[in-house]
Amino acid sequence: MKAINTSPISGMQELLPARQAIFDQMKNEIARVYHLHGFESIETPVIDRTDILLAKAGGDTEKQIYKVVKTKEASEGSDQALRFDHTVPLARYVVEHESQLAFPFRATQIGRNFRGERAQKGRFREFYQCDMDVIGRNDLPLSYDAEVILTFLDAAKAILSQKILIRVSNRKLLTGLVSGLGIKEKLPGISSIIDHAEKVTPEKTSAALIEEGLSEAEKAKIETFMHISGTREEAIARLKSLEISDPIFEEGIRELDEVLRLAEAGILENDDPRDDEAIIADMMIIRGLDYYTGTVFETILPDYKEIGSIGGGGRYENLTGYFTEQKFPGVGGSIGLTRLFYILSEYNLLKDEDFRPISYAIIPITAGEQPAALQLAAKLRKAGYLTDIILTDKRLGDRMTHAAKIATSAVVLGESEVATGDYMAKNLQTGEITPLKF
Amino acid sequence: MKAINTSPISGMQELLPARQAIFDQMKNEIARVYHLHGFESIETPVIDRTDILLAKAGGDTEKQIYKVVKTKEASEGSDQALRFDHTVPLARYVVEHESQLAFPFRATQIGRNFRGERAQKGRFREFYQCDMDVIGRNDLPLSYDAEVILTFLDAAKAILSQKILIRVSNRKLLTGLVSGLGIKEKLPGISSIIDHAEKVTPEKTSAALIEEGLSEAEKAKIETFMHISGTREEAIARLKSLEISDPIFEEGIRELDEVLRLAEAGILENDDPRDDEAIIADMMIIRGLDYYTGTVFETILPDYKEIGSIGGGGRYENLTGYFTEQKFPGVGGSIGLTRLFYILSEYNLLKDEDFRPISYAIIPITAGEQPAALQLAAKLRKAGYLTDIILTDKRLGDRMTHAAKIATSAVVLGESEVATGDYMAKNLQTGEITPLKF
Repeated sequence: MKAINTSPISGMQELLPARQAIFDQMKNEIARVYHLHGFESIETPVIDRTDILLAKAGGDTEKQIYKVVKTKEASEGSDQALRFDHTVPLARYVVEHESQLAFPFRATQIGRNFRGERAQKGRFREFYQCDMDVIGRNDLPLSYDAEVILTFLDAAKAILSQKILIRVSNRKLLTGLVSGLGIKEKLPGISSIIDHAEKVTPEKTSAALIEEGLSEAEKAKIETFMHISGTREEAIARLKSLEISDPIFEEGIRELDEVLRLAEAGILENDDPRDDEAIIADMMIIRGLDYYTGTVFETILPDYKEIGSIGGGGRYENLTGYFTEQKFPGVGGSIGLTRLFYILSEYNLLKDEDFRPISYAIIPITAGEQPAALQLAAKLRKAGYLTDIILTDKRLGDRMTHAAKIATSAVVLGESEVATGDYMAKNLQTGEITPLKF
Repeated sequence: MKAINTSPISGMQELLPARQAIFDQMKNEIARVYHLHGFESIETPVIDRTDILLAKAGGDTEKQIYKVVKTKEASEGSDQALRFDHTVPLARYVVEHESQLAFPFRATQIGRNFRGERAQKGRFREFYQCDMDVIGRNDLPLSYDAEVILTFLDAAKAILSQKILIRVSNRKLLTGLVSGLGIKEKLPGISSIIDHAEKVTPEKTSAALIEEGLSEAEKAKIETFMHISGTREEAIARLKSLEISDPIFEEGIRELDEVLRLAEAGILENDDPRDDEAIIADMMIIRGLDYYTGTVFETILPDYKEIGSIGGGGRYENLTGYFTEQKFPGVGGSIGLTRLFYILSEYNLLKDEDFRPISYAIIPITAGEQPAALQLAAKLRKAGYLTDIILTDKRLGDRMTHAAKIATSAVVLGESEVATGDYMAKNLQTGEITPLKF
């Protein structure tokens, strides 16, 4: 027999069942919270037209996209490809089904996307993204930005036991600031420097700003700005004290103030100590993607800063600009679950590391007890317990070992148990034996 | 602006949110039932090596497979493709992770597979399959066949409100029968004729059997055999009365008897009238795929026979023959959910056609009520209610219309409601108004 490589392709996540159960639990929790917040699931095809997927792309995206071809057509090239994010298919979906959707439309998409990146530790070519977006038709009130941030906070709390920090900014602030300083044309460079500032020393950031051609005074203003963070009141006061007279900057202040004020109002009072100062203003937040136009946010675990962002999102003025002239502004957030799961696992921060999904393993000693075992299993399942029956004829010890690998409790059925109906459940971690009332 | 086609590629399922919610509910129900029966979720990559995927394939599969290529490599051909079923990746998974799995290994895979078939009504190129399999190492007791059938019955009951009929046969019966008649070499032809017998007239089947070269006596035996169906006792008696003296045939009778006997034992007594005679013997069941070697079953809705099979499965002697010399026999079942959903929808048989996933839509009349609305939403969500807040400043009537599209109840918050905390929920179908205690 020819030896065949049975490992998955590199860059693909493939988990053992106990870990898959943790992953699925996180995915289901995120979906549950998004649904609680009124987001409705949609699902777009994994395969779409290349001209749709690449309508607004360029650079890396085009290089990383997976095209698909049927064997017969391989030589003729392909006009179909795998989606690389949820945003482009969402835009297509909204334009296609617009007349049948209710706006503002709250949509969530949880599924796999595909990028043919160079494989490296913690980078995945197939990865789950958990997106939620509110899409307006023609306009969308600012209040939805707060709703999205609150949804994100609840989702993060549901899958993590650590303290969570959502850092919020508004792209109009930096845009207005450089405009007020009369250095509008330097916006892309300055954005990129701030975006990377937490990954390098302050000296490097300072040097980069000078390289960008900023005067000492301009550099000082930018550095003061980028280090503004804290509660809404603090941040708004410090932003005002920059004394920038620019209408876009002032709009940015008003928007940031309003979004944070509503987000505070939406946190349930006296509910969870993790809510205290979970949402702050932070001018260091830029988010690279250039389609964000207002609110932007990113989330970290403040006790594990080295992990970096666990997700974020923001406001975009036009989702569908490449497909239609009608305007659909939106605000959304996304958790990159495959990457997050990988990192939490590396840092030993997953909930339930030793998770046993199955509640009961029933072991009929001989074939004679199998009908009673099947009947007991039916009762336990009806009552909602995840139940396996071990139907092999291996030694009882081997079957108990098997049970301990998959279940939390074992129920052994011999002739006398079946005759009396007195079933005992043995907890496979503690050894404790308790009567099973079924 | 260039007009762009925003419809999904033909052969792809794309649903509006209310229908997606029904689809997801069915998918989640199937997963819940599989888990209840001790099956653990695994997830294999969508993209796999072509040599793995096509190891045992041929014919149509090879023509229908989607190869994937990165743009840069497009001209060089590809050694990666999209999985077209769950069976091949499961085989790879079992061989790859064998040392870390507990056998018998109960696995469920629920996800999308891909086949580049010619698009036609009811055929999908991306489609969900909901698989569950029990895999043994070296051997796997027959009793698991009953467990798989019971799991399938519970899953079908969970997603359908109609009466369900599982028709069970055993491949050894026909194999033994033709061997006993001394016409072994005609097995493929006869299998295929029986497999298609329900789609054509009895005369056509009869003619086909004669064309196959059968004598009148042989044809009569085969026709008597293929029409045997009914309860275990009836079917076993009629099979025995065929008086075929062949060890494989006799093994087939013993296996069918045992599997049906255990399946009967596993049905919860006095639980659901749909369980009465839900599982029968039926020699018409062949299932085309040639890897089935023992038990085979297929499921129909007896009151809607025209729908055809809603799923099935069976026993295979060796899952991993193409990847390793070690033997992994298994038994499994699968529901093709995308096709099933489409057909149920065509026949108006979906549960909850007018499903509203959202429980409450909160409408703050002005921006002044938004903080109270957000706080009420937090409380409702905490209590488990799916809650939207409509934050637009459109006319109240328009906002109520929006609410009626997405939610079952609306809560309007004006100044006085916020001042008193007396919130009223209006049922958007009945118009009934009830106080909301939060």
